[in-house]
Amino acid sequence: MFMRESPKGEVELILKLAQGFGAGPPEVVAGIGDDCAVIDLGQGEAWLWTVDTLVEGVHFELSYMSPAQLGRKALAVNLSDIAAMGGEARYVLLSLGWPPERELAGAVALGEGLAQAGRDYGVSVIGGDTVASPGGVAVTITVLGRAPAVEIIRRGGAQVGDLIYVTGRLGEAAAGLAILQGRADIPAELAAPLLKAHLEPQPRLAAGRLLAQKRLATALIDLSDGVASDLRHLCRASGVGAVLRLEWIPISPGVVEVAKAINRDSLELALRGGEDYELMFTSAPKLRQPLLQAFAKIGIPPPIQIGEIIPGGDILVMTPAGEKKDLGVGYDHFLLDRGVVRD
Amino acid sequence: MFMRESPKGEVELILKLAQGFGAGPPEVVAGIGDDCAVIDLGQGEAWLWTVDTLVEGVHFELSYMSPAQLGRKALAVNLSDIAAMGGEARYVLLSLGWPPERELAGAVALGEGLAQAGRDYGVSVIGGDTVASPGGVAVTITVLGRAPAVEIIRRGGAQVGDLIYVTGRLGEAAAGLAILQGRADIPAELAAPLLKAHLEPQPRLAAGRLLAQKRLATALIDLSDGVASDLRHLCRASGVGAVLRLEWIPISPGVVEVAKAINRDSLELALRGGEDYELMFTSAPKLRQPLLQAFAKIGIPPPIQIGEIIPGGDILVMTPAGEKKDLGVGYDHFLLDRGVVRD
Repeated sequence: MFMRESPKGEVELILKLAQGFGAGPPEVVAGIGDDCAVIDLGQGEAWLWTVDTLVEGVHFELSYMSPAQLGRKALAVNLSDIAAMGGEARYVLLSLGWPPERELAGAVALGEGLAQAGRDYGVSVIGGDTVASPGGVAVTITVLGRAPAVEIIRRGGAQVGDLIYVTGRLGEAAAGLAILQGRADIPAELAAPLLKAHLEPQPRLAAGRLLAQKRLATALIDLSDGVASDLRHLCRASGVGAVLRLEWIPISPGVVEVAKAINRDSLELALRGGEDYELMFTSAPKLRQPLLQAFAKIGIPPPIQIGEIIPGGDILVMTPAGEKKDLGVGYDHFLLDRGVVRD
Repeated sequence: MFMRESPKGEVELILKLAQGFGAGPPEVVAGIGDDCAVIDLGQGEAWLWTVDTLVEGVHFELSYMSPAQLGRKALAVNLSDIAAMGGEARYVLLSLGWPPERELAGAVALGEGLAQAGRDYGVSVIGGDTVASPGGVAVTITVLGRAPAVEIIRRGGAQVGDLIYVTGRLGEAAAGLAILQGRADIPAELAAPLLKAHLEPQPRLAAGRLLAQKRLATALIDLSDGVASDLRHLCRASGVGAVLRLEWIPISPGVVEVAKAINRDSLELALRGGEDYELMFTSAPKLRQPLLQAFAKIGIPPPIQIGEIIPGGDILVMTPAGEKKDLGVGYDHFLLDRGVVRD
């Protein structure tokens, strides 16, 4: 929360808002700056709670996305926040802003997409509100999840020497967006998974729950802004640095093709593209085998190691030649200007 | 929830959405169509959960409302939903849509107004997100509250013969809006409470909690759309009718003056104005004395009787002469055209 594509000056705004809101009561063990707020009333199971809004013209266009896909994606990005703390998602409220002049059939289709996604992920939509929204469609979803309090994984637990993993390939959603925007034309069989990654991201609830239940991760976050940005959040919260091995970054052939078409390095797309909604986590080296076995046992793809945690606060990349460079901060403004990475 | 100022065709939309979402799991004992979703895990205390969005140009204009007032009001309308089931509000998440070109100082001031209102009402803002919103400011608040499951009061419990009460005067917020829109000019001392009613509505948390704790109400709802509309919700849910005594409707002198200025009946403003955020409830006649004593004991204004529950499904008004008429449905379209009542 307080982390996804946002107004300019977001960091300053969030700091000031957080300052005004003050420290929560003692039972709120995580809040602003985490993926979810965590309410632990000391009953064993804690509540995880998150809210996110998708705005037309900022986070999506209905020219390339169906209302049903939008309903599904609005849920998925919220479920990803629950996954990012190892929780089990349970209940959903929808607040839907719909332009008065548009056909209500679109709103109904959005609701159907949301409801279907809810069934797919085992969560129930139990209420909400609808409002007129003259400026465009705005979909706010809030999700409540549960997890045993002792299992919840936060961003701040990474230890020096831990390995850094991701749950899937990177940059596909950003590459898919470039295709949808008509800026890259690649063979259909390569494009298909990229389009799906952007239009129908899969929240990694099973992986998050597994990591939590089996105590396999020291820190956990979901990739909403891209590795470059989200790894910085994780390292800052943990008081550590990181080095990424560039040859280990999982990049699909389609991402390479799109990167060529828009005249960019595929690594840029993978590390700064955003909206992957994969999980990124750190785990002790000695847990590598149990980790891989646990993923295999429940039939989900193995996590992919992309680097390791180092002392200090630097976020570095290591080239195949062994050269180390600073990863740089936030979005790539060239990509931003070209509309691949959105602000 | 799913009840406040909404797109045209809202009722049809909500029915279709609710149909798609299906019945919730058994622990969700209230949901779509109630003021809050209620999650009762059988631990004595249940959770109350609500979400509401205020949209610039629909629910407010920043020309007559400060960002801090907006932050406060966005919380108040949500707290009113918690009050409307007899709950105690606890935690808040904010999802703030802010136009990229606007000064962030306004967003910070909104956050400060929200934080101050949170302190006033004993709730904590524990997280949220910020997004760019090119179409105007949109403030979504979601609130979690608690109440002993057995105490929660819903809309559907009204019994024939019950008396109907409201917790305060009606039509003040709608009259205040007319003044803010420059459509009525009345003496400042009469205008002040009306402006306050519109800009800084007071959620009736103490009254709601009292009614729940002391089992003093059979049905409870908050007045967001106006008595005409909200009484219909209550009666439909309870399978009963109602008769309102027009001479009992509490109307302040300022509302009378505004009604004159805009050439309307003050009763129209009182019964159809909307945004009062008072509570309306039904209670057995034999509890009248305990009810008044309980309100007096905690130092809140006494509830005001406005009518009684009758068999059947009709919603009637009785004139001082004893004549009975149908109250009519929903908003008054003449008022709507004049901008006093908003769609």
